[in-house]
Amino acid sequence: MSIHAVKRSQCHLAWDNSIAPVLRVKSGEIVTFDCLDASNGQITPDSTVDAIKSLVFSQLDQVNGPVFVEGAAPGDTLQIDVLRVAPAPWGWTACIPGFGLLTDEFPEPALKIWELDTENMVTYFDKEKTIRIPLRPFAGEMGVAPGKEGAFSTIPPYATGGNIDTKHLSAGATLFLPVEVEGALFSIGDGHAVQGDGEVCGTAIETPMTVSVRLTVRKDRPYIKTPHFTTPKVNIQDEEYYCTTGVDADMREATRAAVRNMIDFLCAEHALDRVAAYMLCSVAADLRLHEVVDMPNYVVGMMIPRSILGASTPSESKL
Amino acid sequence: MSIHAVKRSQCHLAWDNSIAPVLRVKSGEIVTFDCLDASNGQITPDSTVDAIKSLVFSQLDQVNGPVFVEGAAPGDTLQIDVLRVAPAPWGWTACIPGFGLLTDEFPEPALKIWELDTENMVTYFDKEKTIRIPLRPFAGEMGVAPGKEGAFSTIPPYATGGNIDTKHLSAGATLFLPVEVEGALFSIGDGHAVQGDGEVCGTAIETPMTVSVRLTVRKDRPYIKTPHFTTPKVNIQDEEYYCTTGVDADMREATRAAVRNMIDFLCAEHALDRVAAYMLCSVAADLRLHEVVDMPNYVVGMMIPRSILGASTPSESKL
Repeated sequence: MSIHAVKRSQCHLAWDNSIAPVLRVKSGEIVTFDCLDASNGQITPDSTVDAIKSLVFSQLDQVNGPVFVEGAAPGDTLQIDVLRVAPAPWGWTACIPGFGLLTDEFPEPALKIWELDTENMVTYFDKEKTIRIPLRPFAGEMGVAPGKEGAFSTIPPYATGGNIDTKHLSAGATLFLPVEVEGALFSIGDGHAVQGDGEVCGTAIETPMTVSVRLTVRKDRPYIKTPHFTTPKVNIQDEEYYCTTGVDADMREATRAAVRNMIDFLCAEHALDRVAAYMLCSVAADLRLHEVVDMPNYVVGMMIPRSILGASTPSESKL
Repeated sequence: MSIHAVKRSQCHLAWDNSIAPVLRVKSGEIVTFDCLDASNGQITPDSTVDAIKSLVFSQLDQVNGPVFVEGAAPGDTLQIDVLRVAPAPWGWTACIPGFGLLTDEFPEPALKIWELDTENMVTYFDKEKTIRIPLRPFAGEMGVAPGKEGAFSTIPPYATGGNIDTKHLSAGATLFLPVEVEGALFSIGDGHAVQGDGEVCGTAIETPMTVSVRLTVRKDRPYIKTPHFTTPKVNIQDEEYYCTTGVDADMREATRAAVRNMIDFLCAEHALDRVAAYMLCSVAADLRLHEVVDMPNYVVGMMIPRSILGASTPSESKL
């Protein structure tokens, strides 16, 4: 199995299908990316709050790539298996004026630098080590180039992915994105050591990372129009979920889209009729707000336990 | 320990502080309620979709009570420990025209009757038993009377609770509600055998139930302005959460309120400053949409794992 590498310097600052690929891979191959944090190196372990005051926004949220995946064509699905995510031994969280769900109530810049114990995969919120946070690293940005011409900001998430900031995409997860251009043109970045659903203050524990993913072209998932994913089984008792998302500038419409997309999935893969699927969503699937700060778009997810679908899942094994 | 009972017939159809209590209890006492399903008996195990067509809306979502809790005064908190929830051996789920997140896409009435295996606490979605749903019963409605005079519909949720339809309030959970009138005037109803976060089609598995709760007056939680709760540890490996909610007609404002309320909790009980609490929410707490169908109000929750707060929790033992 060949392993490809994308360097830290091989990054770009917009979703734009005219950006030349830095690498070509065959479907099913693994790529390892070396990524700076989302400040693009503007924040370091020695930074103070002054770094927030002087942050150059146009340099934020760079993504590494793009990678051309052979055989991927518009209408296909790109399957991204997250194999390994390794954060740096430090990270940062900030309140950035004008950014975050409660930005009007938190007008002042603030910066917190974290030491990350990457051996034990844990960090502490306070010096007294009373608040202990297990790390669960993932890439906040995973996306493919849009079919539409032009350069689109890497800050909002899109139907094609990008800054979806979805905490469940840690090692063991599989993400599915709709392909809009030849070769898919996949990029990744925005390392997060850990984050809650929502990323409410606007930042997670931001960190440089190396991340390895397997990129596979799927021709059998035409109903995937926004990011879908399966969650990892980190511990043996963990419930695994199949998840659909809605990405929209209106939170309620994003919610409606997440449900509609789950109904489409259940009808396509589990042979339910639409009314049955809608009822099943109501009694067995959960709505979460994965990301509420990367304006203008929200990412709302609907998550259904795969265990309840087990015996009815003829094509699940293909996942 | 005295045990009190409220009968099936002791119910009412509005939140109204002028409704006379059916029972007076001391703080810390247990009450068992016998509740019809949310159709108020209009739907039975033999019903067909015709029952949805002829549903009398004014009779829906009755709640049993109210119970006067001695010592409760405006500004206090009512703590409701959910001790036991026993569903009937049957339930129903419906698509009701005009109701539900995708009501415009599901204009036709539909009704599904479920057999519930209450011994093994499981039900099956289909005759072939391929889709297996573990039951996790709870009361969709738990609330106290509003301070404001008048009769308010039991269909929307409020800051004082009511139809919060929050799946996490199964046996072992503890709910906290802000008291607005003398005696709190607590009522309960709307049995759900199981539900996902959101209750997206507008109904869960609706079922008659008996439910036992302990009602305790708390004088030490003045910051609780909307429902807060702790989740049960159903299985030994389950993470336990402390949860705050926002209840608002605007989904984004409900989300902001849930976060703001979590910040208030973390500052009050864990001695964090507001910026630290906001950052902690971003990296460690999850946003969920508990209820998105009981118009005009949404219930959005923010859930933080109690384990990460463990050592910093002087007052947590008082929970």
